[in-house]
Amino acid sequence: MLNSLTQDITARLQTVLPAAALKDPEPRYLEDPRGRFAGKAGVVVAPSTTEEVAAVVREANAARVPIVPFGGGTGLVGGQVLAEGPMPILLSLERLNRIREVNTDDAVLVAEAGVILATVQDAARERGFLFPLSIASEGSARIGGNLSTNAGGLNVLRYGNCRDLCLGIEAVLPDGNILHGLKRLRKDNTGYDLRHLLIGAEGTLGVITAAALRLFPVPTSQATGYLAVPDPASALALLSMARARLGEAISAFELIAAQALRFLDETGVSYRDPLPERPDWAVLIDVGLSGQGGAGDAAAALEALFEEASAAGLVTDGILASSEAQRADLWHLREVLPEGNKRVGAVASHDVSLPLSRVAEFLDRGRQVIASVADVRINCYGHLGDGNLHYNVFPQPGRKAADYGNVRDALIRAVHDLVADCNGSISAEHGIGRMKVDDLERYGDPAKLAAMRAIKSALDPNGIMNPGAVLKS
Amino acid sequence: MLNSLTQDITARLQTVLPAAALKDPEPRYLEDPRGRFAGKAGVVVAPSTTEEVAAVVREANAARVPIVPFGGGTGLVGGQVLAEGPMPILLSLERLNRIREVNTDDAVLVAEAGVILATVQDAARERGFLFPLSIASEGSARIGGNLSTNAGGLNVLRYGNCRDLCLGIEAVLPDGNILHGLKRLRKDNTGYDLRHLLIGAEGTLGVITAAALRLFPVPTSQATGYLAVPDPASALALLSMARARLGEAISAFELIAAQALRFLDETGVSYRDPLPERPDWAVLIDVGLSGQGGAGDAAAALEALFEEASAAGLVTDGILASSEAQRADLWHLREVLPEGNKRVGAVASHDVSLPLSRVAEFLDRGRQVIASVADVRINCYGHLGDGNLHYNVFPQPGRKAADYGNVRDALIRAVHDLVADCNGSISAEHGIGRMKVDDLERYGDPAKLAAMRAIKSALDPNGIMNPGAVLKS
Repeated sequence: MLNSLTQDITARLQTVLPAAALKDPEPRYLEDPRGRFAGKAGVVVAPSTTEEVAAVVREANAARVPIVPFGGGTGLVGGQVLAEGPMPILLSLERLNRIREVNTDDAVLVAEAGVILATVQDAARERGFLFPLSIASEGSARIGGNLSTNAGGLNVLRYGNCRDLCLGIEAVLPDGNILHGLKRLRKDNTGYDLRHLLIGAEGTLGVITAAALRLFPVPTSQATGYLAVPDPASALALLSMARARLGEAISAFELIAAQALRFLDETGVSYRDPLPERPDWAVLIDVGLSGQGGAGDAAAALEALFEEASAAGLVTDGILASSEAQRADLWHLREVLPEGNKRVGAVASHDVSLPLSRVAEFLDRGRQVIASVADVRINCYGHLGDGNLHYNVFPQPGRKAADYGNVRDALIRAVHDLVADCNGSISAEHGIGRMKVDDLERYGDPAKLAAMRAIKSALDPNGIMNPGAVLKS
Repeated sequence: MLNSLTQDITARLQTVLPAAALKDPEPRYLEDPRGRFAGKAGVVVAPSTTEEVAAVVREANAARVPIVPFGGGTGLVGGQVLAEGPMPILLSLERLNRIREVNTDDAVLVAEAGVILATVQDAARERGFLFPLSIASEGSARIGGNLSTNAGGLNVLRYGNCRDLCLGIEAVLPDGNILHGLKRLRKDNTGYDLRHLLIGAEGTLGVITAAALRLFPVPTSQATGYLAVPDPASALALLSMARARLGEAISAFELIAAQALRFLDETGVSYRDPLPERPDWAVLIDVGLSGQGGAGDAAAALEALFEEASAAGLVTDGILASSEAQRADLWHLREVLPEGNKRVGAVASHDVSLPLSRVAEFLDRGRQVIASVADVRINCYGHLGDGNLHYNVFPQPGRKAADYGNVRDALIRAVHDLVADCNGSISAEHGIGRMKVDDLERYGDPAKLAAMRAIKSALDPNGIMNPGAVLKS
């Protein structure tokens, strides 16, 4: 039984927070990047210390008023946007934004939740290290939100998801108590791993206020290639070959369909087409080596892979970047793909992952099931190295996404049913938020859901933390 | 309120299990490797299917009888040994021991909980892959126990702890429901990460019955060196240099004190002393490279590191293995160290971890605080790359551990207080079990402990799963 925020409670918040921490609910706090959700908030609070966060949570818990944690507002599944039910407090982490420490001996950076991801990356780079989390929204997403949603992105293949980059967290639990868990240890087996429970919980079990993040050595030699492959199965065989040859040195392995480039052409997004003849499928591969002789090593290793893969018929053409500018061009192409999609306007988008062994089957069957539902265009691209595909469907030329309103739900259902049948995930990296709550109920393991509900009730008996996200409230 | 196992309940177990699954409580089920605990069990059940495990748990939960999960029995903190309270059922996973699948496309091996770790390693190797978990007890420890205790070992620096090697788990929850979570996905953000909650929970939140394990490419070139360092601080500087030069290629980085070798001499354990002049401190380093030109690459990289570190004064002497036999000799030395310790007989052993930046301080202060408590010998060795030290204290020559009974608790307290003061962990890789329950209460974060208790009550309201381990029952 949650209550709406009242003037009385707002007055209490004014007593426990400095004036600068209270803000009006400007529109930017109530929107999501794809314009699917419209949220509400009675007040926006922006504490600048963990103790202030705890004070807000204690007040909210005592009054049973919902809290919506808010990072950079870049989430794609509505986890940061509450539209229904009692009027909530929106808790923005934007002023809890200090880098508390960069320790090069420990290879650890301690950041507060509100630090923007790009700022973390820069701070690491300035000290000669790499913080490898890299996502499209890194210029505005905040690290607390990245952790709460277990962000993925481009370098998961090599460095893991956001959870794998975090050694410890500090958080405010739903009862207002502070979890002091900013460990910076590689090994620590002292009880249940609450860090991993809060990471990916999307703010429903507490508010992450700071994290000890792992830093990595910067590879001393890097190379990038854009390789044409006959089909996705060949791309996967190329991946196997690359891993056997290069081990962990493959930093990224992205699949790009010709459709993605056609969308860029169609919508006037500028890019440089890497190859004279456009292949149906291509792979963007990044290799980073450490500690070998010279700067040319990664290029030589990639060249050798290219030759071996060509001889095996896995690659039909390709270009290896021979300068930083070329490398930037190739990555620019990858980075503008979402803009092309956005301009065409998707009927439905799917952030799915598959076991690598079933990706080719999924793509084959996907074409068939989608054709049986509607006459649309498919654009599939994404982090193939992780089995993570952004599998999106678009209107035929001359039509609009809105024309497909009557088949949209059926398309999503058909794709998600297929994903489930292939033992995949209906949310690879974006999370559940509010958009996929029904999907989680439909496709999730019943024992898992029951355990999740039990944990939610145990840690947040009043249900104040981000109600309606992940689980039905 | 738990009940003791009764003949009636045993009879019910006989109806839900085949005859082969019921065993007598032989002594091997009731001991621990260091002989510190003596357990009890009314019956030993050894189901061979997940459904049989679920049936046992349902019966136990209905009757509120404790269950003690039992893997290889190699745990060092008594997590597998229940001595007090109502008579339990001991649930051995030894017959749930199939490798269900090795999928080279996915680089995944699916093993049931009872598969012995060495068998997992072998199955991976036979298919051209590496399963990197490597611990002293790998010939008898079972993978379910490795996961339940989040085992660490030699290769954590490169590949992570046991939890990092697991993509998904199947488990029987305390209510007898089966968690179907054998995902083999690199990205899957669909709700709370129950995998990471059950891993490391030491059987107190359910029984892991199978796991999807990550396989890795075998490095194509490996090299091992034994390097004399002036002191631990130099060893840490060497580690920093090695990481900057070689990135992820450092597979192991072990610290060895001269004291460890003196114990081998003292107790007649045979080994080959690697260097003509024995240094106070040495480092055993393993480098594995992939995808470079030839088999000599790792040796060349290690040689270059050796030269640079020597020039910087971080290394005073050393030997690089020039053959597999030499490499095996160096690792043999590392592997027999525990035997020397065992023969001398420790007064107290500490499995601790520290931020790397505080290891040297810990060692300095450790000597002082221990000297202030008792006249003992310190042998410190372990996984320095992870900040994980096995910091053990021993009787002076001619005396026995038993002679120090009156100071043992004070020694442990002094070491653990110091660890806590250095922001370390009082259990790096062995877990809490029953031995460190009081320590966890003393040193654990209060908010973490409260949340752990809430989760335990939520998932296991009757408290049947491994009562008294990790948390007080």
